[in-house]
Amino acid sequence: WVAGYNPVNEPGDPTGRVIGPFYDRLGKGVRALDPGQWRMEAEAGVTTATVQRRAREAGLYFPPDPGAAEQSQLGGNVATNAGGPHALRYGTTGDFVTGLEVVLPPGELVRLGGPVRKDAAGFDLKRLLVGSEGALGIITAAHLRLVPAPEARLPLVASFADARAGCEAVQAVLASGVQASALEYLDGRTLELAGAALPGLDASGAGFLLIAEADGTAEEAELQLAEIAAAVEPLAQLVVRPGGREIGELWRWRDGVSNVVATARGGKVSEDVAVPVERLADAIEATLRIGAAHGLDACSWGHAGDGNIHATFLVSGDPAPADELERAEAAVDELLREAVALGGTVSGEHGLGWLKRDALGHQASAAELELQRRIKQAFDPKGLLNPGKWI
Amino acid sequence: WVAGYNPVNEPGDPTGRVIGPFYDRLGKGVRALDPGQWRMEAEAGVTTATVQRRAREAGLYFPPDPGAAEQSQLGGNVATNAGGPHALRYGTTGDFVTGLEVVLPPGELVRLGGPVRKDAAGFDLKRLLVGSEGALGIITAAHLRLVPAPEARLPLVASFADARAGCEAVQAVLASGVQASALEYLDGRTLELAGAALPGLDASGAGFLLIAEADGTAEEAELQLAEIAAAVEPLAQLVVRPGGREIGELWRWRDGVSNVVATARGGKVSEDVAVPVERLADAIEATLRIGAAHGLDACSWGHAGDGNIHATFLVSGDPAPADELERAEAAVDELLREAVALGGTVSGEHGLGWLKRDALGHQASAAELELQRRIKQAFDPKGLLNPGKWI
Repeated sequence: WVAGYNPVNEPGDPTGRVIGPFYDRLGKGVRALDPGQWRMEAEAGVTTATVQRRAREAGLYFPPDPGAAEQSQLGGNVATNAGGPHALRYGTTGDFVTGLEVVLPPGELVRLGGPVRKDAAGFDLKRLLVGSEGALGIITAAHLRLVPAPEARLPLVASFADARAGCEAVQAVLASGVQASALEYLDGRTLELAGAALPGLDASGAGFLLIAEADGTAEEAELQLAEIAAAVEPLAQLVVRPGGREIGELWRWRDGVSNVVATARGGKVSEDVAVPVERLADAIEATLRIGAAHGLDACSWGHAGDGNIHATFLVSGDPAPADELERAEAAVDELLREAVALGGTVSGEHGLGWLKRDALGHQASAAELELQRRIKQAFDPKGLLNPGKWI
Repeated sequence: WVAGYNPVNEPGDPTGRVIGPFYDRLGKGVRALDPGQWRMEAEAGVTTATVQRRAREAGLYFPPDPGAAEQSQLGGNVATNAGGPHALRYGTTGDFVTGLEVVLPPGELVRLGGPVRKDAAGFDLKRLLVGSEGALGIITAAHLRLVPAPEARLPLVASFADARAGCEAVQAVLASGVQASALEYLDGRTLELAGAALPGLDASGAGFLLIAEADGTAEEAELQLAEIAAAVEPLAQLVVRPGGREIGELWRWRDGVSNVVATARGGKVSEDVAVPVERLADAIEATLRIGAAHGLDACSWGHAGDGNIHATFLVSGDPAPADELERAEAAVDELLREAVALGGTVSGEHGLGWLKRDALGHQASAAELELQRRIKQAFDPKGLLNPGKWI
């Protein structure tokens, strides 16, 4: 991208170790993978799964795993600053972006940053593009920083009588001082809907399920998992350690929870609010309370360690009948306000888009809203990008 | 900062574990420290050392360590996105900021983000303020995310015949797949000036010194350090493992290198360029070559693993004689252009300020420069903040 940097393996590359490009049948590609320098340059249309797989083949790791990795694409991951279970330890997509190629209105290709790991020159426009949901520019490629792949990733599954006990266990894990690589939860109602297929543990009747994971070298992950188990056990009903193929089955099951819940009654309205982690139980209970007040079956699951919940109201179809949808929308609005009242945000990872186009006002001051508008104006004065969306 | 969030230990705090505030004699304070939630809220005038110390007392760790920690302050750390040796593993200051309190022109106090760990609502104005060098707003406080303190931090010191061999060792450490917590270097000339006080190793005659550090549990750090040693040894002259009090002495010595070099001839002009790590040897050699071409004694040291070098030209006084300063400025300009030509940036961690006010043009396109100006205009239409600086 910049003079002197040779992104593919041509003569003149000083390391001789850069590999690629790899293009798939749709012509979307990983432009360059540099195992020795822990870097990748990939186009926006490459799936998250491809980025993860290419990194893994080189002994490296791209931690963002927002789910549906075979469908989700890198450009969308950057544009929404996607997270997922492993954001707890590793951060969200933006933490792995060192450079962006982006088309800015009215149609200019601009490169921000590049392969260099640190850059303090000027305002960080690249970071501003991260999470901008296509409202400032269209991301076409990204330079990614990767990390060494952990040798082992060991999960633990624990069931609890209710959300209070489960959230107390989350606090106990934090207090143990162990950096879990993931701390995921499902509430009791989600377990009723999706728990039957949970591999390796009978969660029937449980009010909360926690999936904790430790990673590192095999020894290190074992040590950390033992500390997590010690923190969790006094509060849990059952604690099991999946092994072998159960580990893959567990994460595939976790990845499928959203779809299983959606099909339970025909549809769902789901919001990814986040709250400070000590307010997690409050947010989980508020979801149920708000659902009940609007006559809606409600549940939640998500990234417990980040206080990031997928608060969900079930509806009977997609689209749902008009009156039901109206109740769901009222419930969502109440939920978003509750998240802010708990010290949190209306969106922990999916952004605002069309559905939450008015929700930023719940948490941002008038001064911040005005600045948001001015940023949009600075990049896209004619409003060409994503018109009518939240900004 | 937001309704429902109680930043100090008052009745009503759901955890009952938040401690603080702590105010120093200048009235600058840590507003709240929440050990159980790995969080701190601190004012801009608190020194980096205080943030680090308060975190450590709670079993936690604030990784940014830009040097001169007793003088440097959190507000400056955020405004320059400060890094330091441990940015290699942990990232820079911005990676630990979840919320900012900031005064925006003409004088409005605005809160962006807060204690919540993930927030995808709206453009990430908080991240835009990070590294903005006081040109967009004045940071008055920050919400910080902390991490568990590593149990052990074990350094290794290795000397090499020259920069090529040393940089090959850096590549070998990366290729080993071990995530070192720091990979620092000093070139031969820096060693001549500052090496006599290096504890535990006679580096006289060496052309390059590498300080590698591994952290984690005691076992994990030992394992990783052994892998680093195995990668480094075939290329090194001497390899030593400082122990006990030598470890603290080593880092205090490293922290003092910049001052020792500055006093060698009376003054120095130092630039913190960064390049892709495989170009590190090129950047180190370019510094010497450019210095020689301008009749200046030159040297460099810095954060090898991040390709971030402190390229330095020695001058005979502070201020230096006019003709010498003129040569140094010419050398700096050449160096900055060389860093960009190597695929890097004119600033890896200190920003642009006054001295590099024209340097962004070396690496940014006209379209990016125009966007930088529009961002400034959006925040500070009357140009009240830091007038005359780079923007």
